[in-house]
Amino acid sequence: MSAPKKVVLAYSGGLDTSIILKWLQTEYGCEVITYTADLGQGEELEPARRKAEMMGIKPENIHILDAREEFVRDYVFPMFRANALYEGLYLLGTSIARPLISKHLVQIAQEHGADAIAHGATGKGNDQVRFELAAYALDPAIQVIAPWREWDLSSRTKLLEFAEKHQIPIAKDKRGEAPFSVDANLLHTSSEGKVLEDPADEAPDYVYQRTVSPEDAPETPEMVEVEFERGDAVAINGERMSPATILTKLNELGGKHGIGRLDLVENRFVGMKSRGVYETPGGTLLLEAHRGIEQITLDAGAGHLKDSIMPRYAELIYNGFWFSPEREMLQALIDKSQEHVTGTVRIKLYKGSVRTVARWSEHSLYSEAHVTFEDDAGAYDQKDAAGFIHLNALRLKLLATRNARVAGKK
Amino acid sequence: MSAPKKVVLAYSGGLDTSIILKWLQTEYGCEVITYTADLGQGEELEPARRKAEMMGIKPENIHILDAREEFVRDYVFPMFRANALYEGLYLLGTSIARPLISKHLVQIAQEHGADAIAHGATGKGNDQVRFELAAYALDPAIQVIAPWREWDLSSRTKLLEFAEKHQIPIAKDKRGEAPFSVDANLLHTSSEGKVLEDPADEAPDYVYQRTVSPEDAPETPEMVEVEFERGDAVAINGERMSPATILTKLNELGGKHGIGRLDLVENRFVGMKSRGVYETPGGTLLLEAHRGIEQITLDAGAGHLKDSIMPRYAELIYNGFWFSPEREMLQALIDKSQEHVTGTVRIKLYKGSVRTVARWSEHSLYSEAHVTFEDDAGAYDQKDAAGFIHLNALRLKLLATRNARVAGKK
Amino acid sequence: MSAPKKVVLAYSGGLDTSIILKWLQTEYGCEVITYTADLGQGEELEPARRKAEMMGIKPENIHILDAREEFVRDYVFPMFRANALYEGLYLLGTSIARPLISKHLVQIAQEHGADAIAHGATGKGNDQVRFELAAYALDPAIQVIAPWREWDLSSRTKLLEFAEKHQIPIAKDKRGEAPFSVDANLLHTSSEGKVLEDPADEAPDYVYQRTVSPEDAPETPEMVEVEFERGDAVAINGERMSPATILTKLNELGGKHGIGRLDLVENRFVGMKSRGVYETPGGTLLLEAHRGIEQITLDAGAGHLKDSIMPRYAELIYNGFWFSPEREMLQALIDKSQEHVTGTVRIKLYKGSVRTVARWSEHSLYSEAHVTFEDDAGAYDQKDAAGFIHLNALRLKLLATRNARVAGKK
Amino acid sequence: MSAPKKVVLAYSGGLDTSIILKWLQTEYGCEVITYTADLGQGEELEPARRKAEMMGIKPENIHILDAREEFVRDYVFPMFRANALYEGLYLLGTSIARPLISKHLVQIAQEHGADAIAHGATGKGNDQVRFELAAYALDPAIQVIAPWREWDLSSRTKLLEFAEKHQIPIAKDKRGEAPFSVDANLLHTSSEGKVLEDPADEAPDYVYQRTVSPEDAPETPEMVEVEFERGDAVAINGERMSPATILTKLNELGGKHGIGRLDLVENRFVGMKSRGVYETPGGTLLLEAHRGIEQITLDAGAGHLKDSIMPRYAELIYNGFWFSPEREMLQALIDKSQEHVTGTVRIKLYKGSVRTVARWSEHSLYSEAHVTFEDDAGAYDQKDAAGFIHLNALRLKLLATRNARVAGKK
Repeated sequence: MSAPKKVVLAYSGGLDTSIILKWLQTEYGCEVITYTADLGQGEELEPARRKAEMMGIKPENIHILDAREEFVRDYVFPMFRANALYEGLYLLGTSIARPLISKHLVQIAQEHGADAIAHGATGKGNDQVRFELAAYALDPAIQVIAPWREWDLSSRTKLLEFAEKHQIPIAKDKRGEAPFSVDANLLHTSSEGKVLEDPADEAPDYVYQRTVSPEDAPETPEMVEVEFERGDAVAINGERMSPATILTKLNELGGKHGIGRLDLVENRFVGMKSRGVYETPGGTLLLEAHRGIEQITLDAGAGHLKDSIMPRYAELIYNGFWFSPEREMLQALIDKSQEHVTGTVRIKLYKGSVRTVARWSEHSLYSEAHVTFEDDAGAYDQKDAAGFIHLNALRLKLLATRNARVAGKK
Repeated sequence: MSAPKKVVLAYSGGLDTSIILKWLQTEYGCEVITYTADLGQGEELEPARRKAEMMGIKPENIHILDAREEFVRDYVFPMFRANALYEGLYLLGTSIARPLISKHLVQIAQEHGADAIAHGATGKGNDQVRFELAAYALDPAIQVIAPWREWDLSSRTKLLEFAEKHQIPIAKDKRGEAPFSVDANLLHTSSEGKVLEDPADEAPDYVYQRTVSPEDAPETPEMVEVEFERGDAVAINGERMSPATILTKLNELGGKHGIGRLDLVENRFVGMKSRGVYETPGGTLLLEAHRGIEQITLDAGAGHLKDSIMPRYAELIYNGFWFSPEREMLQALIDKSQEHVTGTVRIKLYKGSVRTVARWSEHSLYSEAHVTFEDDAGAYDQKDAAGFIHLNALRLKLLATRNARVAGKK
Repeated sequence: MSAPKKVVLAYSGGLDTSIILKWLQTEYGCEVITYTADLGQGEELEPARRKAEMMGIKPENIHILDAREEFVRDYVFPMFRANALYEGLYLLGTSIARPLISKHLVQIAQEHGADAIAHGATGKGNDQVRFELAAYALDPAIQVIAPWREWDLSSRTKLLEFAEKHQIPIAKDKRGEAPFSVDANLLHTSSEGKVLEDPADEAPDYVYQRTVSPEDAPETPEMVEVEFERGDAVAINGERMSPATILTKLNELGGKHGIGRLDLVENRFVGMKSRGVYETPGGTLLLEAHRGIEQITLDAGAGHLKDSIMPRYAELIYNGFWFSPEREMLQALIDKSQEHVTGTVRIKLYKGSVRTVARWSEHSLYSEAHVTFEDDAGAYDQKDAAGFIHLNALRLKLLATRNARVAGKK
Repeated sequence: MSAPKKVVLAYSGGLDTSIILKWLQTEYGCEVITYTADLGQGEELEPARRKAEMMGIKPENIHILDAREEFVRDYVFPMFRANALYEGLYLLGTSIARPLISKHLVQIAQEHGADAIAHGATGKGNDQVRFELAAYALDPAIQVIAPWREWDLSSRTKLLEFAEKHQIPIAKDKRGEAPFSVDANLLHTSSEGKVLEDPADEAPDYVYQRTVSPEDAPETPEMVEVEFERGDAVAINGERMSPATILTKLNELGGKHGIGRLDLVENRFVGMKSRGVYETPGGTLLLEAHRGIEQITLDAGAGHLKDSIMPRYAELIYNGFWFSPEREMLQALIDKSQEHVTGTVRIKLYKGSVRTVARWSEHSLYSEAHVTFEDDAGAYDQKDAAGFIHLNALRLKLLATRNARVAGKK
């Protein structure tokens, strides 16, 4: 690997990525291009531009992008078509944002003729893997610089010394160490580390940033109607909205009712367990509603097949293989299943939980004529069930007969 | 199939199975043996004995059994080791009780030299399949009589006429039709049919029988500690209890806090969709807590394998294949994984939801030394991550190179 | 089910389906429409036309179709993209033809306004299921008549009596019972029943109809080059051909060299085991060659995913669910994987076996630069492997540490 | 990682591992313990002892072990219960030997208080992963030294210089480079590299070492009967033998008839494709015979479940995860299925191919009474099939109805 000449940096404007920016300049003497995207993390982007300028980045090398619609339309929604949950519970809020960022970094690198990209993820986590696998999949010739794996700024003290030495402004509240680490985007906020490191200790309430405590949520339930077309949410309470607007609205609703909190010990791809606290208010509503609409519009065979491949699909996204043939193959399977996943679900929000209470669709497969306890006018012949059971039982009978025969001979 | 001479009937003491009892006597002229079990459905059994006697069943042909411990120990707990959910949401409360009942029916039939068993499930549902597959798997020579598929008592009026004609007492509240149908045992209560038949209509509140409405649940959260050994719950708040006692206690706790309600449209094995309302208060707590303890005690490879086979395992139970080689094979796999699933989980119960907030175990795989943001004293070498990523990326790079090469030639 | 007025019959022209034809006329008094297709079974179709006419079928009610190209292009080739094998060994030659026949029967029924279709499969086999599931999936209102499940012509004698009574001509060699039953199409010939019913008895050599005995095959091997595009064979030994022509040619080659014989005891969908003898000469070559080309053009992640879903895909086809959402979803996944499965494979045919000996492609992912034992000029950094192994080992080390710690405490 | 003081080396006695032995002594100044095992590779072990002694290894530090029975009984046979094939074709002959070697290395290290083990696998292959994952899983504190990833002896010339400098005897035929690289044990011989590196070039005949060419195999077929108990082969042609003796005998038979050759391009775990030529004569017979006995003794549900998890099981072994919880869980599932896999199979060997021609067992599930074309005396009621089909079709009909309804509205 030769020394990079031009590097595109995923730049938040914060202290850590500012240190990385400077470190790239000093360590490699390379030209730095910054990329700052609005993925719904709730921070303004213009300060990042000003900071980049202040650190000597040429205006044409500063890229600021509102990626919220792309994020929800091309990443979040396809993933929710699968009802993806990692390890049964985690909605993959961080995982799904990483490939999009890498895609942008690589695109900008190609436009500028840059030979490398750089990110601020550490060597212990999953994000480094996600950033880098995505980048290599999109541009096999790209270099990826992960300063946290390379430099010797291994303590908070050393980082601050480096910042001071290079006149990087340090906000007052960054002098002390943060009590935990945060990542946020339109889908979720995750918190981990420090005060959260012992999974036997309950997470302190101040960790939660995006949802009220269920105890503080409204005393009265709220009903919300989510409309789907081909597996994607398209309207809330009858109002059509863009993908990012829908997720934003669902976040407001879920956050207000204390919904979507998760305290999880999960298995990282790099081999260790870690404890995270996640808040995914809108995503939690979306999953519940999507399952609700699938219940009446998706065939049993299709649904069971989807369920059976879901853990693998979720694991691929968690591990950083969004841009892989196998994820794309599974996506083709999932998308094929969603052609009729169209209709409306009413969900009930109340003090930390969400439940489907009603659903209807012109694409419904539910047949009251068949299921009714009343006279079904011949829709279903109960005598068929005898034959169905007899043939399903045949191999079990042959087994029992064999087992008894063999046991009898002993 | 020759006419049965002795039949063991799954007898609840209620109107429907009393009609079946009489119908078996009159239709086949056969001797009837009754079996009534306490699976925790919350009804007394002695009235069933008295009714059976009244209908002429010989005392030695009346079997009353408390099967609660067997049910939880040998059916519910093994299933919960798998975190089984049918179609992502249903805790299989009815499904898991059926094989136990069939096992008892077959055992009693063998003791009495009976040639048939009979059950009161209809020809449209899953229960007929579950009862019969289990019975045939345990005794390939047994006959199974399903009166609802055979007789012509196809309306409420005809049933009542039959009852009156044969002097079967009809409780006043059974004169009118029940507004929905109920099944209950220690794991859950399910309701379906009639007023629940339109999935676009919200279930009326009077359907719920075992859980308070979340709105009516206590205003203050309650913390509960569940202790596990090898995958099974063994103590609550430090007090060791038998399996059935634990589930009973969890039901009280969950029911009090409005936890475990589910309104679901599911796919029946016989090919139609149906809508059910389920209450599984204790089971919902147990699933959450079991997942919590697995988070720190179960290895990633083991956990992901379990997750990947769970949908199939759940489908087998739902479809009635409890006594099948493939369910037993999956159980062997699952049980193997639980050897170290030992430890304690603290769950928080509040107004309809339950969340794991802390967990600890001497069997924990969580390594603070590895995961810490602080200096890890060499437990983990961040440089290893570069190699890990490079080799995981290699095939993706080769793919991208190939794809670009081929595209370039076009 | 009301009595059918017009029935489309899958008619071979043979004795059995002629009896069915007449039985439909006499039993239901209905108009019969015949459908006879060339699927490569190696029989002429015009005799079937003449027989149908002779039995009073109106010329406009006689449908004769050459379906070979449709069969191979739309059914055989898509299935071979999956490397489908039922129970590890069976190439599904009968299973894959049934949905096509049903599709034609339903189309003709719709054109003629017929209300039913009829087939000649018995009540013990898989074919009835395949015919009927396909028909119902394509036209939920269609009736399906399966005379073998309905009539009382339960012995050879009764069948012949019926034929004689209705002046159906009986070929001399049909007077006695055939020593086994045969099904054939362009993909395979299957034989079962009678002399083959005891799986402990070797199949007599006269059962084989389409392949020479390996002992009688040529003494010298033959090399054949098969070229693929996007997963489908398009040329043999450099000559481009249509799908059916390719399969015909492969059949000649395989048959000549005694390749593709299989003596199998399999599990029928209806619950029993049966023994079949299959000859699939061309299909066996095609599977080997397709695997050969995938070896260099398909990514590991894609290939392993395909392998993992293949058994389910094969089972769906075997069980008759070709026209089901889950088969179509799996097909979408499989087809997605085949975009670069393009290139050429050389296979060696010799006395009953076929082996890939060479393969090459412009779409190859094989990188001699990476794999070489020689100096690789930096293509691969062996040091990366250490990190790769360390992180893959991390969870195993944590497990071993935990297990030792717990064991030590006991 | 501190410098090792005592190292257990997997020592073959050949040039390469002799160089490693010396390099360990000179590079680390550590005490070397040698381990040489007979896994059926067909080489005598005493020369390795003499060489080790000559290089200064203390007699008590030289371990020579006949591990053939352990290898077949505890590794090969359990794997064959699963019908394991990697990527559809490869019988995992190298993969399955590695964990056994690591287990011995770790045991010896623990006995001697050694702090490290060393192996001679390169940094490009799978074997390094298999050796090291197994070692770390068995002893998380062990160090593993992989000289090929560490030293600078990167060319044949440098290796020979090092050998000469340290007076390591070089056999004449090792002066020049071998035209390909070989690994062998009782299960297989694999060849790769050099002349085999271009997968478009046919492998030269001199690569094959263990099987005659099919063209040179006997002109007459040979019948062999293999008897199984609970999934493992226990006798050949009626003669009971130990596991290793059985595999040895099957190797002789297969090798004589030119059976078990495979020319494969496979996907290595480390991310690249490689081409290998494998000879697995006995294993190929064993797989065929095991499938043959499962055909009549294994239930459909059990068999299909086994088939569906097999690719994952094979991948785990290929990737080096023999000692992992998930492999052990799958093994528990597989072993559970084999309880009745007992009986005898007759296979026919002829010029490169092996086919099952007959099988019988007291544990057979095959029921001639059910399958017969003749009168089955009521064993099977063909009318049951109608109900079976109707209920299997129900969801497909509801789908078709829905799809038509929705299409009609557009």
